[in-house]
Amino acid sequence: MKTVAIYPGSFDPITLGHLSVLKRAVGIFGEIAVVVVHNPNKSPLFSSKERVEMISQTLVEAKIDGVRVLELESGLLVDFARDLNAKVILKGFRSESDIEYELPMAQVNRDLTSIETVFLPSEPEYGYVSSSLVKEVAKLGGDVSQYLTKSIEKALVERLQK
Amino acid sequence: MKTVAIYPGSFDPITLGHLSVLKRAVGIFGEIAVVVVHNPNKSPLFSSKERVEMISQTLVEAKIDGVRVLELESGLLVDFARDLNAKVILKGFRSESDIEYELPMAQVNRDLTSIETVFLPSEPEYGYVSSSLVKEVAKLGGDVSQYLTKSIEKALVERLQK
Amino acid sequence: MKTVAIYPGSFDPITLGHLSVLKRAVGIFGEIAVVVVHNPNKSPLFSSKERVEMISQTLVEAKIDGVRVLELESGLLVDFARDLNAKVILKGFRSESDIEYELPMAQVNRDLTSIETVFLPSEPEYGYVSSSLVKEVAKLGGDVSQYLTKSIEKALVERLQK
Amino acid sequence: MKTVAIYPGSFDPITLGHLSVLKRAVGIFGEIAVVVVHNPNKSPLFSSKERVEMISQTLVEAKIDGVRVLELESGLLVDFARDLNAKVILKGFRSESDIEYELPMAQVNRDLTSIETVFLPSEPEYGYVSSSLVKEVAKLGGDVSQYLTKSIEKALVERLQK
Amino acid sequence: MKTVAIYPGSFDPITLGHLSVLKRAVGIFGEIAVVVVHNPNKSPLFSSKERVEMISQTLVEAKIDGVRVLELESGLLVDFARDLNAKVILKGFRSESDIEYELPMAQVNRDLTSIETVFLPSEPEYGYVSSSLVKEVAKLGGDVSQYLTKSIEKALVERLQK
Amino acid sequence: MKTVAIYPGSFDPITLGHLSVLKRAVGIFGEIAVVVVHNPNKSPLFSSKERVEMISQTLVEAKIDGVRVLELESGLLVDFARDLNAKVILKGFRSESDIEYELPMAQVNRDLTSIETVFLPSEPEYGYVSSSLVKEVAKLGGDVSQYLTKSIEKALVERLQK
Repeated sequence: MKTVAIYPGSFDPITLGHLSVLKRAVGIFGEIAVVVVHNPNKSPLFSSKERVEMISQTLVEAKIDGVRVLELESGLLVDFARDLNAKVILKGFRSESDIEYELPMAQVNRDLTSIETVFLPSEPEYGYVSSSLVKEVAKLGGDVSQYLTKSIEKALVERLQK
Repeated sequence: MKTVAIYPGSFDPITLGHLSVLKRAVGIFGEIAVVVVHNPNKSPLFSSKERVEMISQTLVEAKIDGVRVLELESGLLVDFARDLNAKVILKGFRSESDIEYELPMAQVNRDLTSIETVFLPSEPEYGYVSSSLVKEVAKLGGDVSQYLTKSIEKALVERLQK
Repeated sequence: MKTVAIYPGSFDPITLGHLSVLKRAVGIFGEIAVVVVHNPNKSPLFSSKERVEMISQTLVEAKIDGVRVLELESGLLVDFARDLNAKVILKGFRSESDIEYELPMAQVNRDLTSIETVFLPSEPEYGYVSSSLVKEVAKLGGDVSQYLTKSIEKALVERLQK
Repeated sequence: MKTVAIYPGSFDPITLGHLSVLKRAVGIFGEIAVVVVHNPNKSPLFSSKERVEMISQTLVEAKIDGVRVLELESGLLVDFARDLNAKVILKGFRSESDIEYELPMAQVNRDLTSIETVFLPSEPEYGYVSSSLVKEVAKLGGDVSQYLTKSIEKALVERLQK
Repeated sequence: MKTVAIYPGSFDPITLGHLSVLKRAVGIFGEIAVVVVHNPNKSPLFSSKERVEMISQTLVEAKIDGVRVLELESGLLVDFARDLNAKVILKGFRSESDIEYELPMAQVNRDLTSIETVFLPSEPEYGYVSSSLVKEVAKLGGDVSQYLTKSIEKALVERLQK
Repeated sequence: MKTVAIYPGSFDPITLGHLSVLKRAVGIFGEIAVVVVHNPNKSPLFSSKERVEMISQTLVEAKIDGVRVLELESGLLVDFARDLNAKVILKGFRSESDIEYELPMAQVNRDLTSIETVFLPSEPEYGYVSSSLVKEVAKLGGDVSQYLTKSIEKALVERLQK
């Protein structure tokens, strides 16, 4: 299977905003590899394995083909991308501050292995939805059903009740 | 007493910038409820109870009427706002990055309970004054008297000397 | 009729984004005066009189009460606001560049007559809709029906065909 | 020839920044169609025909394959894109203000025909190079040889001397 | 007289914001040359000669020494700077959009003659004051006395009454 | 030795971006004092003493004269600056978010001791290089030789292998 683009992130958990990016990215690139990146400076709510599984299940439920879900446990994303023969890293963005935050890493990634990064804007209805905000609201008992699939919402609420 | 607008924040401690927002907000909305929000991810210098008291005393000293001071210990701000029949959340902003930071929460709050958030710009002379910067300067022995009322400055210096 | 807030703009023509701001503003302030401002540096597609009429008709169709529609032909907006006893100028904003553009005028307006300006964020679905972009698309034959009411769309298409 | 992506712009004239975007875009998408867009509100220095020719010659000189150069004289870009079966519009960006400026059009273009827009960052060395700045400097007699190919620089200097 | 820094601009007319930059710049650099730049794309209210005279008079009234006032009628600013042996171009900035606007020119100026540009922030009280906004307000009859010296305000009002 | 400007920062470790700012700043101000600031909220990779030494060695290797390297262990930067008779604080900036972050501190520093802060833009090739990003990449085994001098790169790699 030819992978043109990789879509890296934490996905802790995957939101409808991520899903919107994925659907549209498949339309553009044909094949996408979602890469769940382990960030040693954060304490995720779901383990990398769980997140890979949650994304895979979401893709089945949403009937999206052409997407592989992988995990990057350690090492540089660009080395991982090269091993996959990926030509481009795809990042969604909601606001300019997303771009500001991602741009230096994108330039460094080009320096390291000539891989390019392209930025795909959020659909407006998901332009303010992030995993961290969704978790914050859910922790306080707020209804987050419009930002997540049913399965993911269930998993999130269960995890937070522990 | 009819409360049209709530003005939430940490107020750790209240600055002259906050006071400027409050004075002007009373002129616009008639009644305001200041809501001291407990942020479980931060270690405040003053307890919520202390902050409520400091704000109340400041309002008396500044002869500002039409403001209640309340505390939100847990739960969603929007539920608290609904219980008060508040129609709008008021946020002051100093720069675009304040807006960037607050906007996603504002959109989520509308989704949750249809409450709106409006943004009131700082007066220019307070456009760079934040509680955290004031505390940082005071900790290093700097004079912060132009950013705080006399009482609050005294309370801050005493607390930092402990 | 007590007017708390004025909502100034060009409204050339009124979009669903403006209408969304108006509906929500009435919920917050009770009474709103829309002020069609004549900008001598621009050549509007519709005359001020036509725009006043188009907004009034839109409000009837959308069943929004509590809004007056006025025209400012010349002079300072703040003098007009004072004559109406308005306490606040309301501006909608779609992005930070809207704030950047409006903020200096807001500060000057406070200097001139102590009137405040508050900023209400667009609903996400209208966060990219402006009269000028709608006109640009319509001129090229694009379908702009999702950004305007039926009546306004009809008026726009007719005007552009002249 | 399958065209996945279109790269629209004024290209008045094409700079090394544009050329950098093109080279990298071919690496990502395989096939690109450059579209010279006629903007009725601007007075270009070079006619659309001249610009098409200048881009074509530049591509030959730079030995870049997989790029067609087309002209959009009137009508919507998205209709043109659909006729080419393009799946995506590519925009280079130098700064956040480029994104701010382009994003509303990108959202409208998705509404009109479901075509997506992706944003590719400038290489740092071209992050401040625009056709308009290059023309402004050249008009005042400044050396612009590091921003243009030799042929384009020659054409620009000759045109400005007229 | 040794000129370390030049401070270019339109100064149509000079505001208290410009004057604040000048005072502080003299404290930093010792010697400053104000350069009134002719912009062929704008129709200034005051001629270059008038603006040079207005700035000179303002400096006398404000008792600021160490400043020369010059006029750049044509040609590149960097060539003018080199003839003065200036090491640096000074730009005041009020907001990030000022920086965004000036930065590409600053990078090009370094390319052309290795001259650097440094940015000095406005004092907060002048952070929203621009010549164009002051003129706009004065045209509509607004009081602009807090943004200009007495002499400049008088000159502006007289010119606008013509 | 007369010190006109101080250039404060963490320098953990010094990058080629810092070195570029230093070289250009010496050209503008003649004398510069680099000030290694101890931030009690961060855990630096190198101690303040080590960083002072690394910067000093880098300046020798790069043959840059006119720079002293000092350490601020505690207290306010502005008091330190006054003791040095410095007239200005110099900050490099890569993007607008750097300015946003630094501006409030700059305004407070002027309030405290009338010292000014000027901002010098990064050279484009270093506009995305920060100590923290370089460390992050080096930790994952990435090649950071284009962002650091040879000596600093060696020191960084050795330290991370511990």
